[in-house]
Amino acid sequence: MTKRPTEPSSPSSRTTVRRGAKRAEYEHGKILEILRAGTVAHVGVSTEAGPLVLPMVYGITEDTMYLHGALANSLLKAGTNEEICVTVTILDGLVFAKTPFNHSMNYRSVVVRGRPRLVTNEDEVNDSLRIMTDHIVPTWNVTRNPSPSEIRATRILALSLDEKSAKVRSGEAENEPEDEKLAVWSGFIPITSTFGSPVSNSDSGADTPEAVMNAAGLDIHKRGSLPR
Amino acid sequence: MTKRPTEPSSPSSRTTVRRGAKRAEYEHGKILEILRAGTVAHVGVSTEAGPLVLPMVYGITEDTMYLHGALANSLLKAGTNEEICVTVTILDGLVFAKTPFNHSMNYRSVVVRGRPRLVTNEDEVNDSLRIMTDHIVPTWNVTRNPSPSEIRATRILALSLDEKSAKVRSGEAENEPEDEKLAVWSGFIPITSTFGSPVSNSDSGADTPEAVMNAAGLDIHKRGSLPR
Repeated sequence: MTKRPTEPSSPSSRTTVRRGAKRAEYEHGKILEILRAGTVAHVGVSTEAGPLVLPMVYGITEDTMYLHGALANSLLKAGTNEEICVTVTILDGLVFAKTPFNHSMNYRSVVVRGRPRLVTNEDEVNDSLRIMTDHIVPTWNVTRNPSPSEIRATRILALSLDEKSAKVRSGEAENEPEDEKLAVWSGFIPITSTFGSPVSNSDSGADTPEAVMNAAGLDIHKRGSLPR
Repeated sequence: MTKRPTEPSSPSSRTTVRRGAKRAEYEHGKILEILRAGTVAHVGVSTEAGPLVLPMVYGITEDTMYLHGALANSLLKAGTNEEICVTVTILDGLVFAKTPFNHSMNYRSVVVRGRPRLVTNEDEVNDSLRIMTDHIVPTWNVTRNPSPSEIRATRILALSLDEKSAKVRSGEAENEPEDEKLAVWSGFIPITSTFGSPVSNSDSGADTPEAVMNAAGLDIHKRGSLPR
């Protein structure tokens, strides 16, 4: 089922980009790149009290997105085998047109929709926890692995990457032809998110691992295009 | 109806923080500070095809959050007078415990729930567009204001800030007592999001405005605690 990076994914009707269709991106490999570069997902579920959206860490393989939380996490409980929407947004800049009507953002954003299944298979539990742990800075191999009781206290969901789409915008502002001669500034401000120097815990028991040292100073959101 | 900054807001049952209750923040002024520091909101609605979550810019007053988009924007159409959930997350760092089970993030996150009303009053339309435009970098006063037809093509929603809560985490990792002597590194990596130097459009018609020049090099997510 694994799609090759160059294979286009078929957006479903509900993941076809309607507004700003020229910014839509459906190629599987390009979408994976954005998901690899992203840090936090915003996960939405429908509840009796209305929609609920919360930030979560995540991890991906070529065809699956993993989410996890405490066993009692109400959002993940509500989302198990039910429709959820997972949105990952990377803000690359602010875009200023000659009128605020045409202001925009430079961004890479992915929407994945579907019904996630509960992960119970022991191997997949371990693999998915490792994948989520290592998503941003790999520390799985330099920490104590979760105990059986810690794993029992964790709910892990797996969402297929079948139904997804992305929107990408970059570059300068788009001004109306009638604004061309207007004596107003227009342009964009790039935004960069950077890892600072690691701060060790008061009860830390070892030197800072190489993977953590290497992260200092990195542009977080360029990771997607780097070898991992 | 405007709450004074020191007045605690009353979370409704559905905005009471259940998981990690010690990290909950309900004070109105503290929540406004986070919303002022935030850049992009993730807005969730329930649709017949399941929940949908999309990133949007926003603006706030002391008691109202504004959202806007194209008149045909399907998410804003679905959310008009219906339940929505608006979540603003600022990621301040990654937290590494001695076991990934206790890994965490340093963050400030706000959830606002309610039924937004359509903004149609001309004064409020203008005020809300100015507020959203100036939310991050004030450019309303140095650009051409939207024309009547541009305003007619825009849908503006106003969501009361009555039902809201925040979660805030900062500082080092929390390790299990039994991990105290474990020879494993533990600590956190701060994350900073910074405005780069502005890039002028090829059709820009004026010098870079002072507000834009002043933004260069600023830590975006510290704005909430600064005078504006």
